Amino acid sequence: MPVEERKRVIEKIRHGGWTTPTSGVLPGYAQANLVVLDKAFAFEFLLYCQRNPKSCPVLDVTDPGIAVPALAGKDADIRSDIPKYHIYRSGEHVETTENMEHLWTDTSVAFLLGCSFTFEEALIQNGIAIRHNEENCNVPMFKTNIDTVPAGLFSGPMVVSMRPMKRADAIRAVQVTSRFPDVHGAPVHIGDPSEIGIINITQPDYGDAVTLKEGEIPVFWACGVTPQAAAKANKLDMITHAPGHMFLTDIKNETLGVL
Amino acid sequence: MPVEERKRVIEKIRHGGWTTPTSGVLPGYAQANLVVLDKAFAFEFLLYCQRNPKSCPVLDVTDPGIAVPALAGKDADIRSDIPKYHIYRSGEHVETTENMEHLWTDTSVAFLLGCSFTFEEALIQNGIAIRHNEENCNVPMFKTNIDTVPAGLFSGPMVVSMRPMKRADAIRAVQVTSRFPDVHGAPVHIGDPSEIGIINITQPDYGDAVTLKEGEIPVFWACGVTPQAAAKANKLDMITHAPGHMFLTDIKNETLGVL
Repeated sequence: MPVEERKRVIEKIRHGGWTTPTSGVLPGYAQANLVVLDKAFAFEFLLYCQRNPKSCPVLDVTDPGIAVPALAGKDADIRSDIPKYHIYRSGEHVETTENMEHLWTDTSVAFLLGCSFTFEEALIQNGIAIRHNEENCNVPMFKTNIDTVPAGLFSGPMVVSMRPMKRADAIRAVQVTSRFPDVHGAPVHIGDPSEIGIINITQPDYGDAVTLKEGEIPVFWACGVTPQAAAKANKLDMITHAPGHMFLTDIKNETLGVL
Repeated sequence: MPVEERKRVIEKIRHGGWTTPTSGVLPGYAQANLVVLDKAFAFEFLLYCQRNPKSCPVLDVTDPGIAVPALAGKDADIRSDIPKYHIYRSGEHVETTENMEHLWTDTSVAFLLGCSFTFEEALIQNGIAIRHNEENCNVPMFKTNIDTVPAGLFSGPMVVSMRPMKRADAIRAVQVTSRFPDVHGAPVHIGDPSEIGIINITQPDYGDAVTLKEGEIPVFWACGVTPQAAAKANKLDMITHAPGHMFLTDIKNETLGVL
């Protein structure tokens, strides 16, 4: 990534000139889910992440009141550099904004969690096409009957993202994504959606439906939208990214591979 | 591991009948480093672990005041089930005890961090002998000039453990230990000790010296004693295990492999 290209995109997002999804932007670099909480809840949430590493792989945590993510983007401001934010109050999604400076306080802590865009790039490099890219829409995401491991106020269902593929590709996808535990790692389920409580594969809870072709099976990965389900389940205040509208880190995807 | 064997060993440790190092005990199961802090410092320490995952890979964190590590040993009591504890007051190691029930409070939080005994087993299975096992002593550990990434009150030098081996074995050791990020993962340094600030390889800061044979190089891994160096550097109160005297988890080593 030329530094100028990153600067150009970040500037555009910061000043409201970019409000669409970030899929495919700055290829080769990791993108991240956002969760902002008051520091009073920061320990419990970090513990929730530690207990649920597949859903909530932590890339960076800011110091209270500091809006610069030192490990994931020294040049960025977490309050303005995401195209769209979701504001949750008492678990309800009450607002979508392009900036959240007015809600950020001296006690705000921002958590950046790894995003599946990183492993999608690795899948594509392994010859496995990504259906929602082909169909030019958001990845389909579903609430499941898999309970996350609670920590303090945080609990609720695991949210998963789904990608359809041939059985042989599913095996390769397990291998490829196992290399990347910091961006959700290996799938959590392969095949029959009903086993993890998904009734209708054509009606995702978040994102868009995609085509499941003859001879394909759905493959499910833990998803960084899981904290938003925890906010809802426990009536919490939280600021997050809008699904698909991610934070652009300066971390190279390949450096997240464990082997 | 037969459940009875585990029960027998844990009971013995709990009642003061076992006060020696735990290397080689309950083979196939992970052992863990201990750090106990007041909950007022729990977030900063968990963040320190997140920022320094090679030194401080978190296996479990107890809820405040709860002495049972639910994820790492449901049958255990963290206050009594380690052969020896080190007590740090204002950064000084003031006491070694076989039990720390008298120091545990309603606001105590215990952190269990992965231990190199897990990857040593994998190295042995790959035909790489472990010198300190051959010489029947503790692994040599050194303070380095590598700074950990600070978080709140926690900062200081990375502590490393050292294993001598042939160059070809060092390459295999990188591959083998990369599979186990939750127990320190790949080495942090290979060869010339002076490059990471180690002046005399025959005088470890913790543990015992081992023989470095002709044709061998020292290989260095991040070590779970790093928090004890952080306690010293920042004059903190902390309860830890005594080096080599670990907590016996019920987590199978192999389940910690990422691939």
